[in-house]
Parts: sequence; C-alpha cells; structure tokens
Amino acid sequence: MLVNSRAVRIEWGDCDPAGIVFYPRYFEMFDAATTAMFSAATGLTKYQMFEAYKFAGYPMVDTRARFLVPCRFGDDVTIETTMTEAKRSSFNITHHLKKEGALAVEAFETRVWVGRDSADAARIKSQPIPAEVLAQLSRP
Amino acid sequence: MLVNSRAVRIEWGDCDPAGIVFYPRYFEMFDAATTAMFSAATGLTKYQMFEAYKFAGYPMVDTRARFLVPCRFGDDVTIETTMTEAKRSSFNITHHLKKEGALAVEAFETRVWVGRDSADAARIKSQPIPAEVLAQLSRP
Amino acid sequence: MLVNSRAVRIEWGDCDPAGIVFYPRYFEMFDAATTAMFSAATGLTKYQMFEAYKFAGYPMVDTRARFLVPCRFGDDVTIETTMTEAKRSSFNITHHLKKEGALAVEAFETRVWVGRDSADAARIKSQPIPAEVLAQLSRP
Amino acid sequence: MLVNSRAVRIEWGDCDPAGIVFYPRYFEMFDAATTAMFSAATGLTKYQMFEAYKFAGYPMVDTRARFLVPCRFGDDVTIETTMTEAKRSSFNITHHLKKEGALAVEAFETRVWVGRDSADAARIKSQPIPAEVLAQLSRP
Repeated sequence: MLVNSRAVRIEWGDCDPAGIVFYPRYFEMFDAATTAMFSAATGLTKYQMFEAYKFAGYPMVDTRARFLVPCRFGDDVTIETTMTEAKRSSFNITHHLKKEGALAVEAFETRVWVGRDSADAARIKSQPIPAEVLAQLSRP
Repeated sequence: MLVNSRAVRIEWGDCDPAGIVFYPRYFEMFDAATTAMFSAATGLTKYQMFEAYKFAGYPMVDTRARFLVPCRFGDDVTIETTMTEAKRSSFNITHHLKKEGALAVEAFETRVWVGRDSADAARIKSQPIPAEVLAQLSRP
Repeated sequence: MLVNSRAVRIEWGDCDPAGIVFYPRYFEMFDAATTAMFSAATGLTKYQMFEAYKFAGYPMVDTRARFLVPCRFGDDVTIETTMTEAKRSSFNITHHLKKEGALAVEAFETRVWVGRDSADAARIKSQPIPAEVLAQLSRP
Repeated sequence: MLVNSRAVRIEWGDCDPAGIVFYPRYFEMFDAATTAMFSAATGLTKYQMFEAYKFAGYPMVDTRARFLVPCRFGDDVTIETTMTEAKRSSFNITHHLKKEGALAVEAFETRVWVGRDSADAARIKSQPIPAEVLAQLSRP
C-alpha cells in the first residue's frame, strides 16, 4: 500500500502553555494526513472525490494515539500514513509522526467509507470503497 | 436590544505557549456567543433555527477585535453580546468579554442572514432577518 | 471515585461539512472534562493547581476514542468523567459522552502527572499524584 | 518590505456545516502566516527567534478581517503577508488571502513585540523590534 509522507511545521497555535503540541491538534493533523494519502493516490482533493465517487466522507469509528516524544512550535515533523487494512467499507489507517527520525506519535484509525442514503439524502450510510481507489492505493 | 451574558471558563487548550488565550480561540467563543444570543431570544438552538426559519446561517462579512487584557487558563470571564444594528439582511454584533469586571476583549461583527437559494439549493443567498427574531431580540 | 458530569452544548464551530462533530473537537472537550473532574474534586482551577501542587500538568500518554452516535450542532450532551486507575504518577481516565441517555462517544486516557525538573526548570518530569488530590477524588 | 507568499490547502476540518471555512480558522492561518513572514526574513523558526532575540512573541493588539469570497475544503489558496508599518515595538501586518487570483479574505493586524520583564520573568513587556529583523524584512 502507498505510504504517503507529509511534512508539517508545528505552529505556535498548535501548542499549549507547556510549550508542546496540545494533543487534539495531532488529530487534526492526522485527519488532514488521511485525506492527503487519498489525494496522493487519486490525484483528487476531497471535494473532487465527493463529486467523482458520490461519497460523503470517511467518518471516524475508532482512533487511538500514543504520544512518545513531545513536539514544540518550530519543529519540522513528518507524518507517514498508510492504509493497513481494507474491508468492504471500513478501513484502517496508521500514522507515524516522526521528529528527527524518531517516532514521536503513533496513531491508528478505523474509518468507514460513506455515501448519501438514496432514500434520504440527509442521511449517510456505509458503501463499498471504490475498487479504483483501492487499486490506486496499491500501485507499486 | 437583548444583551445576552454568557459565562466562559478559559481552558488550557485555549492557551498558547505564552500561557494566554491564542486569539483565534476568542473568535470561536464569539461565534458561539452570537448563537447563544439568538438562542436566548428565540428559545431555539441554531439547528432548530435552521428548521424554523428555512435559513442557512449568518456568515461573517467583517469582524474586528481589540485585545486589552490577556486571559489565561482557569480564568472565568463573561461575554456580553448584543445586536447593535439590523438592516434588511445584515446586522452588527458587539461582544464585550470581561474579566473581573474589566473589559478584556472588545469585538465587532457584521454578518448576513442567509438562506438556501430557491433556484440552486447548493448556493446560499442573503434573505431578510425574520421579523419574529428581531421582535424577540427587542423584548424589554 | 468521583464521576464528574459536565453538560456541553455542541457548537456550529465544532462541526464539519457533514454537519457532525469534527472528531478532534471531542478530544478538546475531553481534555476540558478531565480538568473539570480535578477542579470538582479539589475546588481549584488548573492554574490554581499549578500554584498549589508545584505541578506542570498531566500530558497525554495514550488515548483512544470510539464514536458510536454522531452529534450535531445544537445537541446538548453530557460528559461523565472518572479516574479508573491511579498508579504512582500515571493514571487512567474514562469519558462517557451521552446524547439523550445513549452512549455516543467513549474515550480512554492514560496521562502522567508531571512537575518541573528541579535541576532544569525548562524540563518536566513525572512526579507522584498528590495524596490529597487522590483523597479528594475518592470522597464518597 | 518583504511580501511573503504562502500556499495553503483548505482542509475538511477547517470547514463548518455550510461547507466553507469557519472564520476563526482564518485567524489561525494568519497567525502562522505572520510567523512564516518572520521566518522567511530571518531564516529562523519562532522557537529559534525566542533564543536569538530574547523575545517572548508578538501578541495581537487589534485585528480585523473582511471576508469577500468563501473558501471550501480542497481549495488551494495563497496568503500574501507583509509588514505595512513598524513603530518602536508595535507593527502592522496585512494579509491578502487569494483564491484563483481573487482576493477572498483581507486581514489587518496590530501586534506588539514583547520580551520577558527583567524584574519578573513571568511577565512580558514591550521591547523594540530588533533592528536586524527590520533590516532583513527590508531587503530588496
């Protein structure tokens, strides 16, 4: 599977009074990193994916993160993101956030691919991840 | 016009490495305070207002804030919010954030009341603020 | 152990284009809920705890959340927070976020109680959770 | 003065239920853009500037933004940032956020350069912007 790597500068506004990243901000970075992985595979922004796949997003079902090394404003880190498992409509993602080569934060996600319910457009329901997207993620 | 008062505890996660509120968080507080003012007047949540008034929100057109006294985590502040002017569809809001009685942040907003465009539901367009809402804000 | 209950109104700004809470915002709510639990037990704000206990916070080591029922703006939810285990300096917290009585989000945290390193004030190091704080959390 | 240009991809998590940027997020982007301007001029991260200049940041005194064109997730925008005036310790910044060449958001900031108070390290006080920094911003 594609391992997408993304460079992130930790900003002043990401950090708390201890001078290190306020941990909910890492989840914002990981949400953007998951989207960046799909964009790298498909060549589409998330908005363009909405139009191309008639889908409505990939809401989070379960996520966990372990915080090993604190990061502070001005740090340049790298987030490596990959899909570790894909079922019919749910899938697992792992993020490795590295600082100077060391694993600083490790995160796991289970998400589900959803579309608009054809019977009620205000509702979402799980639908199969498009085979085309999985193929693009699997390209060597 | 109704002056709605709202108590807010400044949280650790609102603050930056200087130990004081990261100023974009004040704008989050003010957006919630504007909604709280409408909810106090109408008795409806913003979601219920969507259903009651066929509206789509009150996006920001222009906002300004002056920061007079820094606030830090653990501070209990009060936000006083009022509509200072209403035109057909646009309106002005002022927020006074007070700490121990002193004005700590003063903010001004110009917003516009919008609804879904009847010709294209994906688009929004300005529409008159409902007379009922203005009347509720003006109750003595 | 004390189970602290906290009422939260979901705000427009907590939600994403799907109209439901953007999940990193739940972690912001849970961080504030952990602090609210300590404040309920000790009668102190986090800032006052810094002064009373010579401590420097309780950074996150490991957290997990499961998202069962989506919440949208205008929803009134309750977060029930309790310390499920305390070791020398690390401790576990569980949050149950409920919507209309149903469990909507369940979260687990492992944090560590830290203070300033006496040899280098710019560094933090783990230190024992004060016995007084544990006693206050255990009051019937 | 240096006009620093910065490319930003609007993320899903920046947007609200209307599908457009929740305006407090723009202020987060602008805070990072001001820092990026200083980093472009000095070659230093904000953390390195803390060490090089014995300073403690540039807190916001007054800011205003006008929102002209809505941006949505997936949009690639450019933020052009420049210092329009510098006094002894306060300075003005203007940001032009452009989408497909059109001005989408225009923002103004007045900030003050601060350092630690030599009599009380827990307090900050205004101090002159280093001549070296102003010279670097003025390089042709």
